[in-house]
Amino acid sequence: MRLRNVKDAKERIDEAIDLIIDIPRGERHDLYKVFDQSKPLEIEIGAGKGQFAHTLAKRQTDVNHIAIEKFDSVIIRALEKLQDDFIPNLFLARCDAEQLTDFFAENSVNKIYLNFSDPWPKARHDKRRLTHENFLKQYETILKPGGVLEFKTDNRKLFEFSLESLNKYGMIFEFVSLDLHQDDIEDNIVTEFEERFSKLGPIYKLIARFKEEA
Amino acid sequence: MRLRNVKDAKERIDEAIDLIIDIPRGERHDLYKVFDQSKPLEIEIGAGKGQFAHTLAKRQTDVNHIAIEKFDSVIIRALEKLQDDFIPNLFLARCDAEQLTDFFAENSVNKIYLNFSDPWPKARHDKRRLTHENFLKQYETILKPGGVLEFKTDNRKLFEFSLESLNKYGMIFEFVSLDLHQDDIEDNIVTEFEERFSKLGPIYKLIARFKEEA
Repeated sequence: MRLRNVKDAKERIDEAIDLIIDIPRGERHDLYKVFDQSKPLEIEIGAGKGQFAHTLAKRQTDVNHIAIEKFDSVIIRALEKLQDDFIPNLFLARCDAEQLTDFFAENSVNKIYLNFSDPWPKARHDKRRLTHENFLKQYETILKPGGVLEFKTDNRKLFEFSLESLNKYGMIFEFVSLDLHQDDIEDNIVTEFEERFSKLGPIYKLIARFKEEA
Repeated sequence: MRLRNVKDAKERIDEAIDLIIDIPRGERHDLYKVFDQSKPLEIEIGAGKGQFAHTLAKRQTDVNHIAIEKFDSVIIRALEKLQDDFIPNLFLARCDAEQLTDFFAENSVNKIYLNFSDPWPKARHDKRRLTHENFLKQYETILKPGGVLEFKTDNRKLFEFSLESLNKYGMIFEFVSLDLHQDDIEDNIVTEFEERFSKLGPIYKLIARFKEEA
């Protein structure tokens, strides 16, 4: 995503302590504890301006949601949306995907969403892709048994990489679409990126879960 | 594939006993024994008019090839091609994919190709798709350890089904392309179908192998 600097973003985020969970790097924090823990918890990693998480949290009122984004200049938009249209079961968190296991306890998350993640097209950057096995290890740790990863992208190369990466990790594919918008999926929540990119080519989607220990 | 009746096909095939291995249903036959067994053996299932197998066998002179097709009216075209342009390391076989384990011994095949297989679009026909787990079981039996399945199609729904089916079977993906012709794969052999369909949409390709026993 091209980042535009947003004036005062940091200050405005710092002030919104009721809506944004802000974690200084390296500090331990149990993110999921901000909510009533009797309800399922779903998180989006790289939530961008928050349109997807916002819509989803509104739709699933008995599920708790955390939209995670690391860039101030982006999460500020999600914050503005939430300030205009408050949703009690949605929190924003400013943290890096690499710190997930610092912020979520083992077996604490029911579902992880990745939407239009940065494709990191250069081969030498493959470790930064959110479907690289290093991230999968973290997802496996924080997900509850049977919890799933739901992934959408318009980027063919990233999707090919992800199919291979998740397969090699031993994850089980529950759903694959190579052209989501042709499939007439009724409950699809369209993200900001999806609106723009679905006119240019197919949107790919994969739902997969980790193999449970025998 | 729409089948056109070809006059005298059966008679002409029956006469070509030097080029076509013909196996009456239910009869046991070790297909792979027609060749010098010191060389690797690769087979194509549903070889159609044989363009792919013909090109491949010519290119890989130190690999033996068997092009398998069940329809007389189709294999006759592969036969004509082979009669015009003889290739010592290519045989045609008239048999049904369901009989594979009757005709190939365990661990006798190095590679299996599926090119533009019938998509059998109706859900109730899923067992007829050549990437259904019932076929995968047969492939696993006849392939040598480390042997791979290489699969191409233009049919999105069949490819989605196949990704799920092979993944659930525990196969390991070695290569996935969701738009082969964009990838500029130098050694791609274009089949009859591929020529026609690559103008209409992407060609999908998957190479996968069976997990070896620990």
